[in-house]
Amino acid sequence: MDLIDTIRPLAKKTDSKILMVVLDGVGGLPLTVNGDTELATAQTPNLDALARESQLGLVELVGAGITPGSGPGHLSLFGYDPLKYVVGRGALSAVGIGVKLRAGDVAVRGNFASLGKNRIIADRRAGRPSNEKNAEVVAKLRAAIPEIDGTPVEIYTESEHRFVVVFRGQGLDEAGQGLGANISDVDPQVTGVPPRVAEGHDPASERTARLVNAFVARAEAALADEPQVNGVLFRGYSDVPHFPSFEDIYQLRAACIASYPMYKGLASLVGMDVLEVEGEEDALEGKVAALEKSWDNYDFFYWHVKKTDSTGEDGDFFAKVKKIELFDALLPQLRALQPDVLCIVGDHSTPSKLASHSWHPVPLLIQSRYGRKDLAGRYTEEEAGKGSLGLRRGTDVMPLLMANALKLQKYGA
Amino acid sequence: MDLIDTIRPLAKKTDSKILMVVLDGVGGLPLTVNGDTELATAQTPNLDALARESQLGLVELVGAGITPGSGPGHLSLFGYDPLKYVVGRGALSAVGIGVKLRAGDVAVRGNFASLGKNRIIADRRAGRPSNEKNAEVVAKLRAAIPEIDGTPVEIYTESEHRFVVVFRGQGLDEAGQGLGANISDVDPQVTGVPPRVAEGHDPASERTARLVNAFVARAEAALADEPQVNGVLFRGYSDVPHFPSFEDIYQLRAACIASYPMYKGLASLVGMDVLEVEGEEDALEGKVAALEKSWDNYDFFYWHVKKTDSTGEDGDFFAKVKKIELFDALLPQLRALQPDVLCIVGDHSTPSKLASHSWHPVPLLIQSRYGRKDLAGRYTEEEAGKGSLGLRRGTDVMPLLMANALKLQKYGA
Repeated sequence: MDLIDTIRPLAKKTDSKILMVVLDGVGGLPLTVNGDTELATAQTPNLDALARESQLGLVELVGAGITPGSGPGHLSLFGYDPLKYVVGRGALSAVGIGVKLRAGDVAVRGNFASLGKNRIIADRRAGRPSNEKNAEVVAKLRAAIPEIDGTPVEIYTESEHRFVVVFRGQGLDEAGQGLGANISDVDPQVTGVPPRVAEGHDPASERTARLVNAFVARAEAALADEPQVNGVLFRGYSDVPHFPSFEDIYQLRAACIASYPMYKGLASLVGMDVLEVEGEEDALEGKVAALEKSWDNYDFFYWHVKKTDSTGEDGDFFAKVKKIELFDALLPQLRALQPDVLCIVGDHSTPSKLASHSWHPVPLLIQSRYGRKDLAGRYTEEEAGKGSLGLRRGTDVMPLLMANALKLQKYGA
Repeated sequence: MDLIDTIRPLAKKTDSKILMVVLDGVGGLPLTVNGDTELATAQTPNLDALARESQLGLVELVGAGITPGSGPGHLSLFGYDPLKYVVGRGALSAVGIGVKLRAGDVAVRGNFASLGKNRIIADRRAGRPSNEKNAEVVAKLRAAIPEIDGTPVEIYTESEHRFVVVFRGQGLDEAGQGLGANISDVDPQVTGVPPRVAEGHDPASERTARLVNAFVARAEAALADEPQVNGVLFRGYSDVPHFPSFEDIYQLRAACIASYPMYKGLASLVGMDVLEVEGEEDALEGKVAALEKSWDNYDFFYWHVKKTDSTGEDGDFFAKVKKIELFDALLPQLRALQPDVLCIVGDHSTPSKLASHSWHPVPLLIQSRYGRKDLAGRYTEEEAGKGSLGLRRGTDVMPLLMANALKLQKYGA
C-alpha cells in the first residue's frame, strides 16, 4: 500500500511552515568498538539545545540492511517509497549533472570503450580516461552529432569513462508520442565481442533504438583517430519519471535550497521550486540567505548540506566532525525564522570508517509545539535511539512533519 | 513487496563469513510480575561479554501477537516472508520426520479415526492412541499398502493419532507430471458423518485423489479388526515447496549444522548443505566440531541449538536456564573461529511459564566490525529492548547480516 494514497486526501493547506534540513550522509560509526560517532564527537551546543526540546528517533530510508543511494534516500524523506518510485539510471545521471528532462525525452548512460579489430571490445572503460580527456572526446562528439534525423542530441561529460546522452524527443511527432526507453543494451557487459545492436520493444522505443544505433556508428567514425577512446557503449535508458508532485500530495508550496545538481534535480522531479543560492560549493551562508529571502513565499523548505557526506566519503572522521560543527554554528539563524516544524535528518549514513554510504539508520529530529517529553538529549545516533519517535522507515518522516504542522485531517470519522 | 526481490540484485560474493546461531525458543517470560526471564536468570559471562561489543534488538518472526511454528520462524530468519512462503502441512510433517520430498511427490497429513456403523466417524482422533500403538498400526498399513497401482506409498508415524503418507509420484508418467496436491479433504472435521471422498481439482491432482481414496478403502480393510483405530482421515496435501535458494538470493554457500530432522529439512528446503553432526540428541560438541571442520568451505552457517526450546516446552524454567548456560560455556569456541558477522537469535519464544511456543519477540544480537555503541549490556529480552537495532520483523535479520558482512551493494545511485 502506497502511503501517498493515504496522505493525499488528508492534506490541507494552512499557514504553518515546515523546514526540513537534510544533513547528507550525517549518520556515522565509531572508529573503535563502543567509541563515539562523528555526531557524538562533534561539539554541537545549538543542536544539543534543540534536541532537548524536540522529538528524536532513527530512520531507515529504504529498509533493513539496505544502503541507500542519494536518489532513494531523498525520495524516501520526501515520502515516496523508494522501492516503488524508481528513478532510472539514465535519468538520475542527467539529474546529477543538472540536465532537465521533459516528457518525450530519453536519457542514456554511456561508457567510452576501447574497440579493437572488427569492433571487438578490448576495454569496456577505455582505460578510465581523465575527466579532461572525457570532456575533449565529448566536444568532438558534440561537433559530429548535433542531431540525428531531426532529433536534437545533447552529450554531457559525467566522469572518467562515463557520459550521458539526451535525445530530445519532445514534440517530435504530431501525436506527441516522443521517444520510449524500453530498449535493449548496446553494452554486452563483457569484452571480446562487438557492441550489440539496440532493439526497441515498442514503437516509441524503436524510434529511440534507431537513434542509439546511428549514434554508435557516427561516434565510432568521429573517434576513429583516437587510440583508446574509440567506441561507445550504452545501457540504462530512462524517460522522465512521472511522480505525483509535492503540491498534489501534500498541498505544499515547496522550495529546494541546495547547491549540487543531483539534489536540485531530485527536488525538481517531485515538483519543488529550486531556489537560487549564492556562493561556491556547499555555500551554507548563501543557503541561509536564500531561505530568509524566500521565507514568506513557501510552506515547505528542503534545505540541504552536502559536506557532511563528502567528508565521510573521503574517510575523514575529523573533517566530518568539523562540518557538523559548522552546521551547528548557523543553526540559530535557521531557528530565528521560527518554523512551525523543524526537522533535522539525513538521507543515509556515510560513516568515515567505511568511506561510503551505509545501511545504518539516521537520526531524526522533529521540533514542533506538539511534542512529548523525550529522553534523547543530543542529536546523535545513540541518543536518537532513546527518542520517542522510535526506529522508522524514511517514508514516515513527511506524514510526521505534516501532522506536527497540523496539516493533516483526521482519517475516518 | 517481497524483500527477496530487493536483496537479490544487491547481493555480492565476498570472502566474509556469517555465523547465525539459532537458540530454539530462547525467548521467555518471568514466572512472576517483573521477575527475570530464563535468559535473565542464567549466568552467561560469555554472552554478556559478547553483548557489550554487539548490536542488539528484538525480532518478531511472523507478526505482532503471532506465535510462530518452527517452520515459519526459521523461514523468517532465513529471509523468506513466512506469510508468503508457506510450507504445506503435509510437507512440513514429512520434513519434520526427515523424509525428503522430490518434485512429483505428494505428502499428506493423516489422522487415525474411530469409525462406527456405516463408516460414521465416532472420534476424529481414535482416542489419541500412544505413539507405540500408532507405530503398530502404521506397520500393519505398510504391509497392506506398499504401493497403489504402481505408485510407491510410504507411511510414517508422526505422534499419537497423526501419521504421514508420501505418494512417490516422481517420474510416474512419461510427461514427468507426477502428482498434484490440489485435492479436497477426506476429513469432514466433524463427527457423525462418514469420511468424504477426495476430489482432485486438476489432472495431476485427480491422479492423487484416486490414490488417496484407494488408500482410505484399503486402510479400513486392513484395520477392520482394530476396536478403536479403524479409519483414516486426510487433510493437508503438499507437493514439494519451490523456494528460491539461499545461493540464488544471497550468493552464499550455506551450511546447516543441526541434529533434528525438522531443522535439517527446513535448511535443505532453502538449498543449504546439511552437514553431518556426531553425537546423540542436541550434540553441542559435535556441532562445534562440524563447524570447525567445515569452516573454510562455506560463507554462511546456520547453527542450531534445540534444548532451549524443549525445556521451555516441558515448562521447566530452571532446566531451560541450564541449557542457556551450557550454550554460554561453548560460545568461546564459536568466537575463536572469528566470523566476520556473528548473530545470536531465536526462531520464536518458548516461555517455560506457557510450556509452549509464544508470540513474544526474541532477542537478536549482531556482532561485526561495523556496529554502533549500544546500550544493551546482556543478551536478554529486557536489555535487547534497549539495543540499537530496535524491534523488527524476522525477515530483517538476513539483510542486516548481509550488510554487516559487506555483501550488499548500494540501492540506487
